[in-house]
Amino acid sequence: MTTFSKTPLLDTIRTPDDLRKLKIEQVRQVADELRQETIDAVSVTGGHFGAGLGVVELTTAIHYIFDTPRDRLIWDVGHQAYPHKILTGRRDRIRTLRTGGGLSGFTKRTESDYDPFGAAHSSTSISAGLGMAVARDLSGGKNNVIAVIGDGSMSAGMAYEAMNNAGAMNSRLIVILNDNDMSIAPPVGAMSAYLSRLYSGKTYRSLREAAKQINKRLPKILANRANRVEEYSRGFMMDGGTLFEELGFYYVGPIDGHNLDHLLPVLKNVRDMETGPILVHVVTQKGKGYGPAEASADKYHAVVKFDVATGAQAKAKPNAPAYQNVFGQSLVKEAEKDDKIVAITAAMPSGTGVDIFNKAFPDRTFDVGIAEQHAVTFAAGLATEGYKPFCAIYSTFLQRGYDQVVHDVAIQSLPVRFAIDRAGLVGADGATHAGSFDCAYLGCLPNFVIMAASDEAELVHMVATQVAINDRPSAVRYPRGEGRGVEMPEVGIPLEIGKGRIVRQGNKIALLSFGTRMAECEKAADELAAHGLSTTIADARFMKPLDVDLVLKLARDHEVLLTIEEGSIGGFGSHVMQTLSDNGMLDGGLRMRAMILPDEFIDHDSPNAMYAHAGLDAKGIVAKVFDALGKDYKTETVKLA
Amino acid sequence: MTTFSKTPLLDTIRTPDDLRKLKIEQVRQVADELRQETIDAVSVTGGHFGAGLGVVELTTAIHYIFDTPRDRLIWDVGHQAYPHKILTGRRDRIRTLRTGGGLSGFTKRTESDYDPFGAAHSSTSISAGLGMAVARDLSGGKNNVIAVIGDGSMSAGMAYEAMNNAGAMNSRLIVILNDNDMSIAPPVGAMSAYLSRLYSGKTYRSLREAAKQINKRLPKILANRANRVEEYSRGFMMDGGTLFEELGFYYVGPIDGHNLDHLLPVLKNVRDMETGPILVHVVTQKGKGYGPAEASADKYHAVVKFDVATGAQAKAKPNAPAYQNVFGQSLVKEAEKDDKIVAITAAMPSGTGVDIFNKAFPDRTFDVGIAEQHAVTFAAGLATEGYKPFCAIYSTFLQRGYDQVVHDVAIQSLPVRFAIDRAGLVGADGATHAGSFDCAYLGCLPNFVIMAASDEAELVHMVATQVAINDRPSAVRYPRGEGRGVEMPEVGIPLEIGKGRIVRQGNKIALLSFGTRMAECEKAADELAAHGLSTTIADARFMKPLDVDLVLKLARDHEVLLTIEEGSIGGFGSHVMQTLSDNGMLDGGLRMRAMILPDEFIDHDSPNAMYAHAGLDAKGIVAKVFDALGKDYKTETVKLA
Repeated sequence: MTTFSKTPLLDTIRTPDDLRKLKIEQVRQVADELRQETIDAVSVTGGHFGAGLGVVELTTAIHYIFDTPRDRLIWDVGHQAYPHKILTGRRDRIRTLRTGGGLSGFTKRTESDYDPFGAAHSSTSISAGLGMAVARDLSGGKNNVIAVIGDGSMSAGMAYEAMNNAGAMNSRLIVILNDNDMSIAPPVGAMSAYLSRLYSGKTYRSLREAAKQINKRLPKILANRANRVEEYSRGFMMDGGTLFEELGFYYVGPIDGHNLDHLLPVLKNVRDMETGPILVHVVTQKGKGYGPAEASADKYHAVVKFDVATGAQAKAKPNAPAYQNVFGQSLVKEAEKDDKIVAITAAMPSGTGVDIFNKAFPDRTFDVGIAEQHAVTFAAGLATEGYKPFCAIYSTFLQRGYDQVVHDVAIQSLPVRFAIDRAGLVGADGATHAGSFDCAYLGCLPNFVIMAASDEAELVHMVATQVAINDRPSAVRYPRGEGRGVEMPEVGIPLEIGKGRIVRQGNKIALLSFGTRMAECEKAADELAAHGLSTTIADARFMKPLDVDLVLKLARDHEVLLTIEEGSIGGFGSHVMQTLSDNGMLDGGLRMRAMILPDEFIDHDSPNAMYAHAGLDAKGIVAKVFDALGKDYKTETVKLA
Repeated sequence: MTTFSKTPLLDTIRTPDDLRKLKIEQVRQVADELRQETIDAVSVTGGHFGAGLGVVELTTAIHYIFDTPRDRLIWDVGHQAYPHKILTGRRDRIRTLRTGGGLSGFTKRTESDYDPFGAAHSSTSISAGLGMAVARDLSGGKNNVIAVIGDGSMSAGMAYEAMNNAGAMNSRLIVILNDNDMSIAPPVGAMSAYLSRLYSGKTYRSLREAAKQINKRLPKILANRANRVEEYSRGFMMDGGTLFEELGFYYVGPIDGHNLDHLLPVLKNVRDMETGPILVHVVTQKGKGYGPAEASADKYHAVVKFDVATGAQAKAKPNAPAYQNVFGQSLVKEAEKDDKIVAITAAMPSGTGVDIFNKAFPDRTFDVGIAEQHAVTFAAGLATEGYKPFCAIYSTFLQRGYDQVVHDVAIQSLPVRFAIDRAGLVGADGATHAGSFDCAYLGCLPNFVIMAASDEAELVHMVATQVAINDRPSAVRYPRGEGRGVEMPEVGIPLEIGKGRIVRQGNKIALLSFGTRMAECEKAADELAAHGLSTTIADARFMKPLDVDLVLKLARDHEVLLTIEEGSIGGFGSHVMQTLSDNGMLDGGLRMRAMILPDEFIDHDSPNAMYAHAGLDAKGIVAKVFDALGKDYKTETVKLA
């Protein structure tokens, strides 16, 4: 019996070259089949979903009209790129998305020539695209450069910096603004409101109007500024998009991003324009074409495996509360007692648990959009006036606000409280989202208090501790995902600043843990005990100020001192070694070892597999102790799971 | 004989309260005397000059109209704040500016209640001001918040993020855009061009027109969006400043910032408006009122001591070439052989030596404005196309582009070359400009090559080395100021990657230097030799990849191993200790010491005084060696200068 393919046309497309051989009337069917395949694939793998569905037509149209990969196509953030991956030679692996050894959930240079720039943090595409466009001009090339960026990503200063630079240059660059009025949470800010006005005021521009818009620019009269000024004044009177025109871009739109009869000719005309930077404003609907996604509040931004017919997601029952929720709930409890507590998120209310705070205290919650720089200094401003701002930002995204942490917070010793979620390795999101570096980049800053929670109960106490620290900045870091299922305290009790704790007392080996590797330390200690090695476990709690007494005591009383953390070189282990060395405690025979993340970017996989790769699990700890003792550790003796 | 004061009215003003007691007709004279005093003071101290002269009237007017310090006044960047300091109780110390123990060259919270926010990096003021405004609203206060920001600072994404957030909130915030068409270099970018059009198209708005602009908004009809939309459409037709209006600000201007007859009533009206965020566009002239500054190309942005009558600056004859010039000249030589080399600066062409490159290769030079985030990713885009971008950014400002360094450059292993000027302590600019952290924040990143030049000849070779590194990012760090006066090579010769060098061979003490503390190591070694301690000196050259063979050999062959660097914890010393520990070389009696910057922000002073304070000079090295040996080092035996 023959089985009929549900995607007969898509089956003929291995690369965009195959797509471009099709007749223009066939593109609609390709898009429909591409949507079907995207839904089917993500129902198996989970992952980012709504954004990809929204750009099915746009993806198909771009690859049909432009000569990828010679024409460079950059997807901002990259989480809408699954349909792009299906069309660009990766359909056979699309059901390996975000699994170990499988496709990345974002664009990635090493994965395909069709991914000229890896993007997983937002708002980088225009800068990268301008670099490629300028390179083309310098070398006399003719290819197009297309950056597709969402309206949510336009709240980040980086996008503005790139527009500001591009708008003053004469380089041909096509920016497609994918306006779905929804990045992860609904976007906030004046730019978003402006885009809504452009759209709602006029609905879509008709094809005829769009053609007129473009034709005005087809004559190449635009080389010099005088003519551009004339264009501006015309644009000023006739078009929407004045703001973009003022920034030196030619604005075209708004266009219905699901209507290929409009999209294809407009993109073709834009491709053939000879002018400077162009902004094409395309309006799409996140989750388009899949009922359950369209109907859902978050448009199925990211999903786990689901049933295609019903949209029901196969959510596993959690064993313990997620750290982000523990943070949100703890902050609510503290804020009930202290009306100076406010919470700040940079477009991640649900990911950080700030949504929980927002429900209890909407007037004291500030979602500033994708704008980590501003988030940090806005918090600093609040702190100068006696407020107690909690700035909840993932470790990897706090990198965006680093100078503000240094210059506006640390140097002024302002008591901004950082809640650093997604510390350490994060699993399916991979290297771009790993929270590997915060211990190094914050640990070097004077005036900072830096904590890591070893379990979810500790996090409750650390939030309470941050409330109490009112003369300098503080940070608490904790991982993605669930806690250990420990008993939870009714209320948080502030910890003594700079004091760790002994969890288990031994006398030969000391394991000093900073963060949630504690669980692995306990397993390792059991194994070491089985080998006759009496092991102390300590929870550092504070990396800064470091518990010097504890560190020195551990060093004096043990043969081996091993530190472990979910971070890179330059962090906790480095601080411990500096302290030991300063105190002459490395001069006399202590076997000190610092276990850190290896010097590589680790690809996406399950967090456990990633930590095993990094050697930061119980097995790795035991091996390191044996190695420090100069003994050969035979893996077959290990009893660990 | 009585001497007559040249500043009789200014002499009566200790704080703005005194100023506000004067009649409005007297304000002109205050401004004139304030300008005179500013010129006189800076002629003695040197420092930032042109920007302060440009805002003399604005400073006087703001303090006259507003109730500082209850009303919060934030000066963006802070280098225009000398007149502000004179008016706010610091006139008696104004001639101590930027000297050890004296006034800071920027605003500083610990210095005065009139400085509610310390600013020395650009574009932070709107974020901080919005935080203060929101805090006021939360606590039911009534005070004003005023942020004064230059047009150059508007190219930074952070300012946009803050505007985007402020424009969507209803908080009363006054942003004064000080448009002098000149930050340090002439500003670049589309925003700057836009501001010029606003100004040049209409010249100044007359007082009557400005009053009309404001009066339109005086009726409080603005609470809901519907009315605001109506306001927008009116603004759209009548006013300039559409771009700001679209971003949710009420735009007033442009106003002549030197005409107090306009400035005072406009500020008064703005003060009394009850509305959301307001942007007052004030046009000023940098260097205003001092002939030599007005006539100069850089408007005397920053000066050394000068003669008031002639404007002649007392420039000392340099002993050796400045590092920034060595960088610029070396890059020109390399670029003559390699047409793929391009240079990028973020608004610091002369400070980084990129101006030298620009003279030779204008088409291959890119000044992107104050936009470090974009600068880094723009460079990454160029690198994807086979270009060899050199991104020259001060250590402290590279903090602004940190996430881009991680996400766009390091993770993708793109060969962007970072030239990190102003590494280590920088002297008069103080803690906000110290390049203390780059070793920690870059050293943790996989794929990075990190070098430090021990003298200016080494820098030449390191630039050549960077040209040759084409498979991953690289950085070379070097300090502010002059080199050592060593003989310069004709051409740079690429160094072997990850290899250091022995500078002097001994057998008991090993000094392993990373950077320009080499000079102090040599002095210290002489002193140690005089005490019978045979001393090896090594130049690490590379922090990453570290010369493991060299480190292990030094450890094996010496009793004491001491590392020294111009950086914080988490940097070179931490990397050396990690390597030693990984190799078991800390287990057996080596006395390892890592000399780093202390855990504090060090106030401005001469660089030598700052390093002495930090203990990172020859004397400190000798003391540390004696301490490691368990000997008491008597300072009276020291022969060091």
